[in-house]
Amino acid sequence: MPAARRKSSKPNAFYAQSGGVTSVINASAAGVIEACRRSRGRIGNLYAGRDGIVGALTEDLIDTGKESAADVRALRWTPSGAFGSARYKLKDLDKDRAKYERLIEVFRAHDIRYFFYNGGNDSMDTAHKVSQIGDQMGYHVTCVGVPKTVDNDLPVTDCCPGFGSVAKYVAVSTREAGLDVASMARTSTKVFILEVMGRHAGWIAAAGGLAGRGRGEPPHIILFPEIPFDREAFLARVRDSVGKDGYCVVVASEGVQDAEGRFLADMGTRDAFGHVQLGGVAPTLAAMVKEAHGYKYHWALADYLQRAARHIASKVDVEQAYAVGKAAVELALAGRNAVMPVIVRKSSSPYRWTIGSAPIEAVANQEKKVPRHYITADGFGITAAGRRYLQPLIEGEAYPPYKHGLPRYVTLRKARVRRRLKTDFVI
Amino acid sequence: MPAARRKSSKPNAFYAQSGGVTSVINASAAGVIEACRRSRGRIGNLYAGRDGIVGALTEDLIDTGKESAADVRALRWTPSGAFGSARYKLKDLDKDRAKYERLIEVFRAHDIRYFFYNGGNDSMDTAHKVSQIGDQMGYHVTCVGVPKTVDNDLPVTDCCPGFGSVAKYVAVSTREAGLDVASMARTSTKVFILEVMGRHAGWIAAAGGLAGRGRGEPPHIILFPEIPFDREAFLARVRDSVGKDGYCVVVASEGVQDAEGRFLADMGTRDAFGHVQLGGVAPTLAAMVKEAHGYKYHWALADYLQRAARHIASKVDVEQAYAVGKAAVELALAGRNAVMPVIVRKSSSPYRWTIGSAPIEAVANQEKKVPRHYITADGFGITAAGRRYLQPLIEGEAYPPYKHGLPRYVTLRKARVRRRLKTDFVI
Repeated sequence: MPAARRKSSKPNAFYAQSGGVTSVINASAAGVIEACRRSRGRIGNLYAGRDGIVGALTEDLIDTGKESAADVRALRWTPSGAFGSARYKLKDLDKDRAKYERLIEVFRAHDIRYFFYNGGNDSMDTAHKVSQIGDQMGYHVTCVGVPKTVDNDLPVTDCCPGFGSVAKYVAVSTREAGLDVASMARTSTKVFILEVMGRHAGWIAAAGGLAGRGRGEPPHIILFPEIPFDREAFLARVRDSVGKDGYCVVVASEGVQDAEGRFLADMGTRDAFGHVQLGGVAPTLAAMVKEAHGYKYHWALADYLQRAARHIASKVDVEQAYAVGKAAVELALAGRNAVMPVIVRKSSSPYRWTIGSAPIEAVANQEKKVPRHYITADGFGITAAGRRYLQPLIEGEAYPPYKHGLPRYVTLRKARVRRRLKTDFVI
Repeated sequence: MPAARRKSSKPNAFYAQSGGVTSVINASAAGVIEACRRSRGRIGNLYAGRDGIVGALTEDLIDTGKESAADVRALRWTPSGAFGSARYKLKDLDKDRAKYERLIEVFRAHDIRYFFYNGGNDSMDTAHKVSQIGDQMGYHVTCVGVPKTVDNDLPVTDCCPGFGSVAKYVAVSTREAGLDVASMARTSTKVFILEVMGRHAGWIAAAGGLAGRGRGEPPHIILFPEIPFDREAFLARVRDSVGKDGYCVVVASEGVQDAEGRFLADMGTRDAFGHVQLGGVAPTLAAMVKEAHGYKYHWALADYLQRAARHIASKVDVEQAYAVGKAAVELALAGRNAVMPVIVRKSSSPYRWTIGSAPIEAVANQEKKVPRHYITADGFGITAAGRRYLQPLIEGEAYPPYKHGLPRYVTLRKARVRRRLKTDFVI
């Protein structure tokens, strides 16, 4: 195959999705793919890992060159991980050296000199280590991170692609459910609790605060992991809201914990077999309210619906997700290694942003929590400063096209690249 | 006030929202209000009950004439009950006679001769009784029902306004969450369960089936209240799906019950205080799967989010909701009493419908379940016939306008009508 050989005289690139997926991570993939296609003079093939880094370890690579331009374009409005993602953390170099070496071996076999890793804190740590071990093994790989996490907990970057759309979903859902409860409260449900994601940081719960602007508008209470849960204060506030407004809407982070750091979710419900049931903050709070006040309650657990809800994505978020993918390729081609494009806020009102960059080392394994001054003094709401930060991130709608009443999400061909190594690798 | 007196020489009308609200019940309200405004020559004022029928009993009436044309128009895209709804069932005439008489007393005091009642089975029963007692008391009231229920369980009408939008929400959410799980299943969650509304009829769960078309596309399993739950068959199907497709998405009705008619929700989880926790079908199923197969699972409980989700309403549903409101006024003015406008399907493909009418007696207290031939032989999916019925109801998008990233939902003035009765009524 002389043609193929010639093609591979230019170094190839590798892209992988990592960790929990979002409704816009594929927009980042589109940014990476389209930027690589525009740089054909300098990048040969762009391969993607089937199921993330697992695809690299098992030499299960997808040839993105086989995807049509229309399908790549459709990634901008298709949620989830189109190439498959993985929860698969590589540990320290000394503990997982064989895996890192295997990665380099696969990269070498396929002449991969660029590694774009689309993930959160853990993934940035991995990308950093791959860049180190490549050099140790005499095979230089340019490693560039592509930020992604609904949790919005990466440092340095002003916000994280994936968060804005979850924030919009939670704000819209809170407004809608709030209207529902308000209209029924006189004779029916008085307390409604929406449990949202965010095990360690309350960014998603905070976004629920955008649903209302005036006093008495839902949500009446937000519960953050950053604020130790105070049962008495919570119950008193529920009673006050029902007394004043006739009802009470609560947005609770799954990571709510008491002053001793015990997760409410772990104290709460038990399943039919007596196991502690995770995702149990909402029913635990509901039971508490029922016990103390006797109010009729309802609760919802959005779970994956919130992070998959591309139908109500934030336009700003989609644009930023695409931009960081594109910027990652540009940084790599500019010779930058072990860096990650970040979103830099130039102003909040009007909202203006640009793309900068940061060393992945500064991002790896760090967590950015909701700062105290974004949370009201009583711990149950967001301040004007918090609102100023959050508001621009949910701006704009970016509807997918529909057919027969359903979004037209794309399924890629995912053509397998012929293996070149004799050895298998069992993950 | 001679002007007001002159105005009230034409009979007035009363509109009330009843039972669980929907994302399009206000579109029906807009239909009623705009039709009354076009009939000013024959209908004086249109009053609405604050919190539904409770507003009539307590003589707490809202003057819809004080709402601007723009605000009434905005009802078409505002979810929940804009005037307030109520879970307040009037019992039989002999048991609750005092309440029925009070209703007629209030109607007489305000010269109300038309009663438009926007609700489900129970409400049609009430409307029917009001028409009877009025005549017994020598005060004729024309009572017309306006159908509404997310449960889609009213007989005679082909479908119920409110259902199509929940159906669209559930189908879209199932498709989105399905993509999410598919992309993570290799190293993470393998089973995802979405619990949806429908205590007695599985229409909403059935709508989840629209998310996929081909074999292996989610949902892999639908659980209907109409099909007795078979633990072994369910667990075997979960194992098969995970084996073949790598994952399994389940849409489960809250009304799933076993062969003895016991609700799964009642056997399931207990809260922190040991109380049986309702809305517990999904965690019960998840625990079952974990116990039998050890698969990692996630589950979501959409609860009010599904019926309030105006942001993803079905265009067909919005149009039908408006049409039944408008038709109710037209029926009343045509002298029809104790009737309800119904949706008549002329053809499924292309979808064509029109508005007919039925005696409310035929609708009152009846429940329409999912017919057996809409459900596959194995009980876990929908047939081509079921799909043919459901598909048109989710067609078309009808997005609300947005401002600052959130839907612009209207809050009405809800101006109080001056009371004319001396007596209070405690509900």
